[in-house]
Amino acid sequence: MENKKFLITGFSGFVGRHFLQYLYEKEECADVYGIDIRKPAFDMSMYTSRLNIRFQEVNLLDGEALKAVLKEFRPNYILHLASFSSVAFSWQHPEESFVNNTNIFLNLTSALKELEIACRVLSIGSSEEYGNVLPEHLPLREDMQLRPVSPYAVARVSQEMLSKVFVDSYHLDIILTRSFNHIGPWQDERFVVPSFIRRILNIKDSGATEGTIETGDTTIIRDFVDVRDVVNAYYMLLMNGTPGEIYNICSGKQIALSDIIDQIADIVKVEISTKVNPEFVRPSDNRVVVGSHDKLTKELGWKPQIAWETTLRDMVKEMDKS
Amino acid sequence: MENKKFLITGFSGFVGRHFLQYLYEKEECADVYGIDIRKPAFDMSMYTSRLNIRFQEVNLLDGEALKAVLKEFRPNYILHLASFSSVAFSWQHPEESFVNNTNIFLNLTSALKELEIACRVLSIGSSEEYGNVLPEHLPLREDMQLRPVSPYAVARVSQEMLSKVFVDSYHLDIILTRSFNHIGPWQDERFVVPSFIRRILNIKDSGATEGTIETGDTTIIRDFVDVRDVVNAYYMLLMNGTPGEIYNICSGKQIALSDIIDQIADIVKVEISTKVNPEFVRPSDNRVVVGSHDKLTKELGWKPQIAWETTLRDMVKEMDKS
Repeated sequence: MENKKFLITGFSGFVGRHFLQYLYEKEECADVYGIDIRKPAFDMSMYTSRLNIRFQEVNLLDGEALKAVLKEFRPNYILHLASFSSVAFSWQHPEESFVNNTNIFLNLTSALKELEIACRVLSIGSSEEYGNVLPEHLPLREDMQLRPVSPYAVARVSQEMLSKVFVDSYHLDIILTRSFNHIGPWQDERFVVPSFIRRILNIKDSGATEGTIETGDTTIIRDFVDVRDVVNAYYMLLMNGTPGEIYNICSGKQIALSDIIDQIADIVKVEISTKVNPEFVRPSDNRVVVGSHDKLTKELGWKPQIAWETTLRDMVKEMDKS
Repeated sequence: MENKKFLITGFSGFVGRHFLQYLYEKEECADVYGIDIRKPAFDMSMYTSRLNIRFQEVNLLDGEALKAVLKEFRPNYILHLASFSSVAFSWQHPEESFVNNTNIFLNLTSALKELEIACRVLSIGSSEEYGNVLPEHLPLREDMQLRPVSPYAVARVSQEMLSKVFVDSYHLDIILTRSFNHIGPWQDERFVVPSFIRRILNIKDSGATEGTIETGDTTIIRDFVDVRDVVNAYYMLLMNGTPGEIYNICSGKQIALSDIIDQIADIVKVEISTKVNPEFVRPSDNRVVVGSHDKLTKELGWKPQIAWETTLRDMVKEMDKS
């Protein structure tokens, strides 16, 4: 039997690394072609005993470069993680953010049609697509009305709607996700949970037994899902999802940022108090965002398996040694 | 008092001409700047006794050319009729159709922000945005879930969602329509109703008292609204609509294509039978599309005023002499 061939766009980020780790544990042997605008920060050689891995720097806005990769590799599966996801950039340059995000997707679909490559694409979207959330609509389900509030989120919704057209009318094989906030080891410290952990570890490392960190509004409630559960869902969807369908990937559990801080403090064993810095508070944020993963559970039997406590312990452990 | 200044994109089409006619009848005096990729086929000098009219050939994909027009004219009102609306092109080149349609809109919003022009934009959308329609969702209301089925329709939905973001976060003044099939004098004969009229007139002109025309599925039911009622709605929305809001513009009445043919035959006074040519039947068409104009009626008092019979008589009269 031939190896499965996976193309991963946006390979160099932390989700790409976890997906590679997942393939390493799951597949006897597979071919992986990673592309990204920047080199991965992690060491790919950890995985080469079971995976044939290649990496190439490709800007997906360059349709010809992408086409060359597809033509040569002819993947069976594409995990399309790449996006221009900077919310700050999106607000400063709304038109460009929208165009860049839709263009990288259209370059991909256009190349697949032109080259007649029959492969399955998992297109990663975001819970941001739900936008303004009314309390009576929680937990968010895939058939909810979308009210996106940023150019980035509108681009993601467009990508979904275009995908449905491409599946129905051009027989492309595209499956879509709306992935909620994910966290886990190796996540960049600019994200909220690793940034809490780093600052609490700094307090411990200074020798103090208590300290204060500045935060935004810690009463907001979110749905965080462990990235290892996320990549498990991505693999299951690539193998057995239904083309044209959209799947929430979320924990289905609500947690306030203040509870996260308390749990990290417990793990690190320091006393932490918080002080709100108004500059960190985003005025238009939803109070509560929580999703339902019923659809993914019913169709594919996926469930989040990693306890919240385990996620935080693993993150602290990984960051404590670095 | 200074003249009101209207910029009309997509000026050269039949809606542009009717809007000009409307301004001519409504305004003592107004400045009109028309832009389009092709020159108008109609004679603008009919309107110059009351309107100051300029026309310039501009491709809206050329953001700099558009910016130059806006900088010089500094309109108070923009009627944004322009789109790449060819459904055939949209199916053959879905990526390009999507990108062109969103880009002309983003060029406009980006120029308005950069030049800080405080003007109201009426962005013309389409009933195509509703896409696949379930019978229980009729008549279509603005808050219905959208299930667009063509790249063109997805672009239109994106434009609406982006407009909402721009209104909420960048304080642009954009009002949106979903305009249903419009018909009326001067409409291009490639459209369905004028094409029926032309062929029935040809039968009469040949001296026959009866004849047969080839059609698609004439049992489908649509909501046709007279273009003169449409431009009245556009004017009212430019003056008094609510930024960020979407308005259906439709007759609210259902009519089968077969009934239209019967009525034209009555007016022209020939006996017409029809023969279905399977090539003209679109497999995925909705059986019934009909909208509700309750929102526009409640908010602005707009109602369609031209009887269906009058519309057809006027069209026949205009086409019979040409």
